Amino acid sequence: MKESLDTRMKIVIALGGNAILKKGEKQTYSTLIKNIKRTCKNIVPIIRNNKVVATFGNGPEIGYLLLQNEIAKQEIPQMPLDVLGAESQALIGYLFEEQLLNELRKNKIKRIVSTLITQVLVDKNDKAFKNPTKPIGPFYTKEQAEKLKKKFKIKEDSGRGYRRVVPSPMPLKVLEKEVIDELVNKKIIVIAAGGGGIPVYLKNNELIGVEAVIDKDLASQVLANSIKAEVLLILTGIDYVYLNFGKKDQTRIIKMNVKQAEEYLRENQFAEGSMKPKIEAAIRFLKKGGKKVIITNPESVVKDLNNTNGTLIVR
Amino acid sequence: MKESLDTRMKIVIALGGNAILKKGEKQTYSTLIKNIKRTCKNIVPIIRNNKVVATFGNGPEIGYLLLQNEIAKQEIPQMPLDVLGAESQALIGYLFEEQLLNELRKNKIKRIVSTLITQVLVDKNDKAFKNPTKPIGPFYTKEQAEKLKKKFKIKEDSGRGYRRVVPSPMPLKVLEKEVIDELVNKKIIVIAAGGGGIPVYLKNNELIGVEAVIDKDLASQVLANSIKAEVLLILTGIDYVYLNFGKKDQTRIIKMNVKQAEEYLRENQFAEGSMKPKIEAAIRFLKKGGKKVIITNPESVVKDLNNTNGTLIVR
Repeated sequence: MKESLDTRMKIVIALGGNAILKKGEKQTYSTLIKNIKRTCKNIVPIIRNNKVVATFGNGPEIGYLLLQNEIAKQEIPQMPLDVLGAESQALIGYLFEEQLLNELRKNKIKRIVSTLITQVLVDKNDKAFKNPTKPIGPFYTKEQAEKLKKKFKIKEDSGRGYRRVVPSPMPLKVLEKEVIDELVNKKIIVIAAGGGGIPVYLKNNELIGVEAVIDKDLASQVLANSIKAEVLLILTGIDYVYLNFGKKDQTRIIKMNVKQAEEYLRENQFAEGSMKPKIEAAIRFLKKGGKKVIITNPESVVKDLNNTNGTLIVR
Repeated sequence: MKESLDTRMKIVIALGGNAILKKGEKQTYSTLIKNIKRTCKNIVPIIRNNKVVATFGNGPEIGYLLLQNEIAKQEIPQMPLDVLGAESQALIGYLFEEQLLNELRKNKIKRIVSTLITQVLVDKNDKAFKNPTKPIGPFYTKEQAEKLKKKFKIKEDSGRGYRRVVPSPMPLKVLEKEVIDELVNKKIIVIAAGGGGIPVYLKNNELIGVEAVIDKDLASQVLANSIKAEVLLILTGIDYVYLNFGKKDQTRIIKMNVKQAEEYLRENQFAEGSMKPKIEAAIRFLKKGGKKVIITNPESVVKDLNNTNGTLIVR
């Protein structure tokens, strides 16, 4: 796309897991710092001139925390997934804020950064709770899976072993949206809704955490609309959205509108659990008042802010 | 003390570990929820009429996370103490915000709650780094201790075994103080500086986390002064500060001023690592502009807000 990102736009940047830990990398402190530092370097040019909320995925991190909980469970009572979600928000959020502050300082940009623990309301009658689909955490053997089936929902994962699956309900509301809006309007950079937010629902009129994982792009869309952001910038592992992805005739999409995007969705052009939820989030965002969505990788977006590569989606 | 807490005062409430997990209790999800719910019930009457920032201790929680990391270290790379500090901020902060929202809703109080991941700047030349004193995490046998000595500073803990000790440097600045002040002035309830904050220092002009634990009462004091709070309310496991504590002639202190408090400190009236840092935090707070400090337990403070029990400390 060759359009300008106007200064002082309100932008939600949704960072994919790749921006924090690349596929195959082991999660160590130094790897996290190295990756997050690089990501911050990439996004500082966007942050410089805009009002920004940054969200992030937590796939590998919540998997690590889950495994850690399981290994230590004889001595330390396991915490449910909502608490682990919170912990992953802090693990990444802290290092993200720290490295962003460093990068801003290096570039002599005086901006405040704030990281919020974020809860996202879901509906306890969401059909996802009856049909958990999202695989998380480690792989198990058939024997291990049989035992775990008493406690968790377990499914075979395309021949690679057995994994726990959890519901992925639709996000309804970011509980902290007023605070986020207040801060971002003051040009404070907000880091929020990590890992799609901590899923909570109302039970007897009380908020209570639930063992689920919300799609981070959909949560970012709900947040973006609720603070009336103009742009949703989805940063993932690839430079463009492609048609016929992975095939000989794959073609990059430079620009498309909602109608075209819906058409491609119907043609099953986009991979389940990967590009598909991003396109769905993009469509929802634009239908609910958003102006543009850009999908690209962190490296591409910064080459030239007025000539950023990536797929532009408009109404 | 029999003085009124005026409405719309700016108060920092520092919650002791007891408010989250009582001594001897095992940390399970349901115990955490139960305790935090009770604490929220206790503090809602104070929150109702005032601008409040709540901080909390994380002693048991960071100990659990540390042990969990150690048990699982063959499979999951261990994270340093600063990251575990961040995780404990989210673990407690999330449940605290959730239960506070529930309690506020029950009382038909319309207030927004916001939980911030908080970093606290320390000086890398702080003498605490040369002399680590704060015991954390599990107890070890002599044999285990010998091995661990290669990696950590280990000390014997009054005949109960060996423990890792970490530095407890002085807090200099809460990095997120502007955001906290902005929010609290808007009557948003802020949960921040959990566990004394994540300790960071400047190394080659870059912020970097450091393996240390900051005293949470001192961090609360630094925060309270930096946002010009009038009251520092330290909620701990006991109703009053006592002279000759634990002896036959123990006497509660109803009220004292800074001069008297300093005198009692010189007489070693207050236990190291327990009441002493609270009194030190109180003195610092008052000398730097604070109006009053109240030290009591969560149960006492709410009996009658205008006739709260507890020790009052003034300039």
